[in-house]
Amino acid sequence: MRTEDEDTLWSLRQDLVRLHHELVRWGLVVWTAGNVSARVPGSDLLLIKPSGVLHDELTPESMVLCDLHGRPVQDNGFAPSSDTASHAYVYRHREDVGGVVHTHSPYACAFAAVGEPVPCVLTGIADEFGGEIPIGPFATIGSEDIGRGIVSTLEGIRSRAVLMQNHGVFTIGPDPSSAVKAAVLCEDSARAVHLARALGTPIPIEPAAIDALHERYRNVYGQPGDGA
Amino acid sequence: MRTEDEDTLWSLRQDLVRLHHELVRWGLVVWTAGNVSARVPGSDLLLIKPSGVLHDELTPESMVLCDLHGRPVQDNGFAPSSDTASHAYVYRHREDVGGVVHTHSPYACAFAAVGEPVPCVLTGIADEFGGEIPIGPFATIGSEDIGRGIVSTLEGIRSRAVLMQNHGVFTIGPDPSSAVKAAVLCEDSARAVHLARALGTPIPIEPAAIDALHERYRNVYGQPGDGA
Amino acid sequence: MRTEDEDTLWSLRQDLVRLHHELVRWGLVVWTAGNVSARVPGSDLLLIKPSGVLHDELTPESMVLCDLHGRPVQDNGFAPSSDTASHAYVYRHREDVGGVVHTHSPYACAFAAVGEPVPCVLTGIADEFGGEIPIGPFATIGSEDIGRGIVSTLEGIRSRAVLMQNHGVFTIGPDPSSAVKAAVLCEDSARAVHLARALGTPIPIEPAAIDALHERYRNVYGQPGDGA
Amino acid sequence: MRTEDEDTLWSLRQDLVRLHHELVRWGLVVWTAGNVSARVPGSDLLLIKPSGVLHDELTPESMVLCDLHGRPVQDNGFAPSSDTASHAYVYRHREDVGGVVHTHSPYACAFAAVGEPVPCVLTGIADEFGGEIPIGPFATIGSEDIGRGIVSTLEGIRSRAVLMQNHGVFTIGPDPSSAVKAAVLCEDSARAVHLARALGTPIPIEPAAIDALHERYRNVYGQPGDGA
Repeated sequence: MRTEDEDTLWSLRQDLVRLHHELVRWGLVVWTAGNVSARVPGSDLLLIKPSGVLHDELTPESMVLCDLHGRPVQDNGFAPSSDTASHAYVYRHREDVGGVVHTHSPYACAFAAVGEPVPCVLTGIADEFGGEIPIGPFATIGSEDIGRGIVSTLEGIRSRAVLMQNHGVFTIGPDPSSAVKAAVLCEDSARAVHLARALGTPIPIEPAAIDALHERYRNVYGQPGDGA
Repeated sequence: MRTEDEDTLWSLRQDLVRLHHELVRWGLVVWTAGNVSARVPGSDLLLIKPSGVLHDELTPESMVLCDLHGRPVQDNGFAPSSDTASHAYVYRHREDVGGVVHTHSPYACAFAAVGEPVPCVLTGIADEFGGEIPIGPFATIGSEDIGRGIVSTLEGIRSRAVLMQNHGVFTIGPDPSSAVKAAVLCEDSARAVHLARALGTPIPIEPAAIDALHERYRNVYGQPGDGA
Repeated sequence: MRTEDEDTLWSLRQDLVRLHHELVRWGLVVWTAGNVSARVPGSDLLLIKPSGVLHDELTPESMVLCDLHGRPVQDNGFAPSSDTASHAYVYRHREDVGGVVHTHSPYACAFAAVGEPVPCVLTGIADEFGGEIPIGPFATIGSEDIGRGIVSTLEGIRSRAVLMQNHGVFTIGPDPSSAVKAAVLCEDSARAVHLARALGTPIPIEPAAIDALHERYRNVYGQPGDGA
Repeated sequence: MRTEDEDTLWSLRQDLVRLHHELVRWGLVVWTAGNVSARVPGSDLLLIKPSGVLHDELTPESMVLCDLHGRPVQDNGFAPSSDTASHAYVYRHREDVGGVVHTHSPYACAFAAVGEPVPCVLTGIADEFGGEIPIGPFATIGSEDIGRGIVSTLEGIRSRAVLMQNHGVFTIGPDPSSAVKAAVLCEDSARAVHLARALGTPIPIEPAAIDALHERYRNVYGQPGDGA
């Protein structure tokens, strides 16, 4: 019989499988690319995608439980994502973060390849990100470097997404579902702005209007108690 | 046992769930974005999507019944879409409108971000819209402002779609299905014109030909009695 | 009990439903747009999509049987596609044609809007079309004009597809499946060439190489007896 | 009762059906285009798609068993792909290759049409390809010419993909699944770089960083024993 903690963990494992399927569904990843992690509530642990496994073949059991330095704490037969140390860095330095997502979504990658932020020229961008989606540094894969770049780039701004130069997208949220949402909206925003730039110069939105939109979105939009 | 009015309302609730799924299917919205509403026939009420709920998770019961000032008239446990006041404004000022749709479809948003209409350079645009798809003003989300912009922009023209600057698409129709159709064709049109502009300058269609195409489409196309 | 002719006709009705679903599947049409017709073998009749019906809602019974002037010969309760007279014109003037398809596929429409052919710069275009995909005239919807433009534009060339200016794609084939194939490959070709032009100037293929590719494709490619 | 070799061959036939469906799923081919082949382990044979058959209609039995000069060794009623001689050439000249894939994926075809490689400006490209995705020569379809172009272009570099000028993509791998993966990532890479070029000039990645990324990806990424 499962204890309460085991039930929570099992439920989180199932959530992560489902959320990885959302990455595929919304066209944010191909093949084995991308990953979602979750902080295990009330612990110093995280749960993350195994490295190099197809999204279709993910199971709750295959998700890897690690400490907040990215070291596996149980042997379930799977090596964790090669981005684990960076996810762990984010959880250690941002107590408000409960979920981290990484994708190679194509329009966002285009901005990342040229090293430009996605400007806040649509109300949907103001709503979700409260300003532009910023560019982070070029960072080495497999170490904490990416995590360091995520935390420093997002410090003091409202965006939950960062475009890591020459690489792809990392998003954060209070829980993994919110981070997946930010990843979906990051690509949606990058696409619309990319298409707009092909037509001409997007019209800026006044900073005060951006503030008002974001404030309303975080506090009024959605159902009471959504909290995200 | 259900009365006739209850049956009508229940059927409308089911229609709205199905029509929201069409928005996702045709790539017009992501995550919780966008909404469809319907005027409840023979009443001063409208039915609309709950705010911030995933399209997959919508149920007939979750649709929110409001008066024509956007105030919920029943407590079903869901807050209505934050665009409700604007939908209500449209229903109050346009008696011919039975359905309103809002999307953030990407190609249409590109035109909205640069503040340009979609020109009528394809017969499909003449058919459905009878001219260009116009640009409406930048308007605040959460008040009636958007509704005011929709009504004033569409006054005296044949288009059932308007691109609200820096925001997205709003469409109207005699019923919610027609408004969804206009939203699908708005994105389809914006996409083809966007792609054409990358190749060169689209050839204009003569105004008389646009009139003839639109006239035929509204009066001959389709099955007798379609009415839309 | 069905006679042989009735069986053939019923089978053709079923084929047309399936082929319309292929138009949706490959992204060539939205909502009710586009249509497929078939010549009824050994008769002066054609079978075509009813006007303004959603592809999802098509049934074998809803397909409309018409003579080769586009006049319904049976009342099944459905009005035929508004392009029927043009399909009929093609069947009357091209005895080799057994199927006609119309779509508004987006990349092909982009070429149609600027009035440019799709140049033969990929082996797949040489294979299927034996040269560029040509541009036909602007023609009125609802009469035989489009049919006249299709026949005159395709006369003496190998292409089974024509881009009607400011309108969309019409394709022909020995049977409806071949015409659908041409429509799928027309959009695929238009897309790749559109994307190539954004990068630079596509490299031409020598006319002799185009001839050799097309010859091989029509006579060697596929299974013995494919005949298309 | 099946012998071990028959079981291996049957399993390979099933794998090829499944892998062709992956080509469709990831948008790399339309209609009957593209093909996957596999070297039959421990033999001088290959197994390949029949020519001109729809991906939906492929069965394990329809895959054609050929020698390494592309000649069928059994009559199963199907002619092999018209690219068979080129696949065979690759297997004869590259003992490390166990799978070959051909697609007409659109963004990669755009680079092929203008004769340009896909530059290595994203970490995902460095990971999978270890450098740019090169351009091979224009080569005649139906002979060994394409095979010769593949082998000569990929000699001495790390890329498993080559863009054949004016034609499409060929990829190789230790097994057919790895070659399909390379085809999926080739299109994903070509798309992101195409989109980046529309925004400006992609930032190069230092050669030493490319080496480090590729090395890590081939040796650390994935699960122990993946071997690909």
